Amino acid sequence: MLQKIAIVGGTHGNEMSGIQLVSNWIRHGIPGAFSDLDIDCLFANTAAMDANVRFLEEDLNRQFTPQKLSASPTCLEARLAQQLNETLGPKGKSDFDLVIDIHNTTSSMGATLIILEADEFHVQLARYVKHHMPEANVLVEDEKQPQEHPYLCTLGKRGLMIEVGAQPQGLLRADVYSLTEKMAEVILAFVQLYNQQAVPALPSCDAFRFIENIQYPLDTEGHRLAMIHPQLQDRDFAELDQGMPIFQHFDGSTEVWHGDTVYPHFINEAAYHKLHVAFATAVKTQL
Amino acid sequence: MLQKIAIVGGTHGNEMSGIQLVSNWIRHGIPGAFSDLDIDCLFANTAAMDANVRFLEEDLNRQFTPQKLSASPTCLEARLAQQLNETLGPKGKSDFDLVIDIHNTTSSMGATLIILEADEFHVQLARYVKHHMPEANVLVEDEKQPQEHPYLCTLGKRGLMIEVGAQPQGLLRADVYSLTEKMAEVILAFVQLYNQQAVPALPSCDAFRFIENIQYPLDTEGHRLAMIHPQLQDRDFAELDQGMPIFQHFDGSTEVWHGDTVYPHFINEAAYHKLHVAFATAVKTQL
Repeated sequence: MLQKIAIVGGTHGNEMSGIQLVSNWIRHGIPGAFSDLDIDCLFANTAAMDANVRFLEEDLNRQFTPQKLSASPTCLEARLAQQLNETLGPKGKSDFDLVIDIHNTTSSMGATLIILEADEFHVQLARYVKHHMPEANVLVEDEKQPQEHPYLCTLGKRGLMIEVGAQPQGLLRADVYSLTEKMAEVILAFVQLYNQQAVPALPSCDAFRFIENIQYPLDTEGHRLAMIHPQLQDRDFAELDQGMPIFQHFDGSTEVWHGDTVYPHFINEAAYHKLHVAFATAVKTQL
Repeated sequence: MLQKIAIVGGTHGNEMSGIQLVSNWIRHGIPGAFSDLDIDCLFANTAAMDANVRFLEEDLNRQFTPQKLSASPTCLEARLAQQLNETLGPKGKSDFDLVIDIHNTTSSMGATLIILEADEFHVQLARYVKHHMPEANVLVEDEKQPQEHPYLCTLGKRGLMIEVGAQPQGLLRADVYSLTEKMAEVILAFVQLYNQQAVPALPSCDAFRFIENIQYPLDTEGHRLAMIHPQLQDRDFAELDQGMPIFQHFDGSTEVWHGDTVYPHFINEAAYHKLHVAFATAVKTQL
């Protein structure tokens, strides 16, 4: 039974679709269909929201490792993480059965469900989401133990992220809002069925498993030499084969992919621009 | 004769296409075809660029009215504007014959040439740009005298802006970069012809003249009630007639346009989100 659920917006202060959805649900109530669930809606980083920035000092969604939560906080967001650990945690011993953290991205990732483990609960959830939103993507980030992730959603007994794009930072698109709202409602509908032990048997579904981040090419002084190739831009979760273009260099040349077939995502995400991360790769898997 | 030209990037510190183009031209030189022109490339707000934000305290591109330039500066960007007035101005008496300021927008405005007056020079320029870039838009903001505008480009004897979208803040898209580079080069090619008194006679062209900004609907407490309707989103410079949808309310209702036919632009621009500006309107005109 999943009794206590948290729905979080504003973990990044300029990701408006989660902020708007949580704001609407706080002001007007959760949709009536879910009135039997015990749901807390909250904003994570109101200072960043007021400033209309992702974060003020450090990325809040990288502060929730066991190490950081037990260390002396070194920045505003580390202090905030420890406060949230009291509200939504404590991590590993939380009263919250599920924490749903809502994000958006400048990458054309559509409606993506990010899960941190592929146990029976999450596999059933993934299948249910794909069944009701065939347009959705499922991304599995289980390269480490769920609790070792630095994400806010790991404060709960279970945690997941809704990640929808493409949406620029600091504004709200109706298409992204609608996908965000739909995925949140499908997840809550699944939770109701799970609690009633009434989840239908569904066939296995496609998913993507994160491998690694790919960096932009830089010169010896650290200057960016290239941009995402137009043939890769906006092609999140499409197949990238050896020999296909990935970077358009400013000198006019094209750089192609030399690795095995992968499925890029977070292509040209603004938040990773300063880190020189061009995109992440994944392999296709079945859940 | 236009002898001294300035090309400016980074007036807004998170608008990456102009920043990257100016960076490339500073590091590798202006394209050889324009070697006869005296061109200074510079960044306007390096502090905002380092912080990857539009501005630190106030919008730099609203600091260049005669009043603000002669008043005691009240913020970092006002001080910076007065320094830039020494470099590129003084406004009204500048050595620079043309200041080209490069911007990008989250709105789907394509490659837009923004001019502040419709005198013979700018009309010829507009026709030349449209002739060589039929996909470009020309936006005339001549609702006030050019020198009364608060824009950086008004420091020169003549000033204009290149505005390209859609591109989220803080990242670089190859399509937007290419349009930006192309429009900058077409403008410089025009300047060469103008200096040689060899501008070809071209037919008049379509342009758009700014009318007003349209606000989002708010409740009595200032909460946003709606978002841009999906049928308006990404339709910059398309015709908007009475009865066509403009806002999708969170309560599910649709709000339609009640005015005369206009051509919306800056639809859902992130920088205007906090100001509750939904879009700007224009009428179609001929230059």
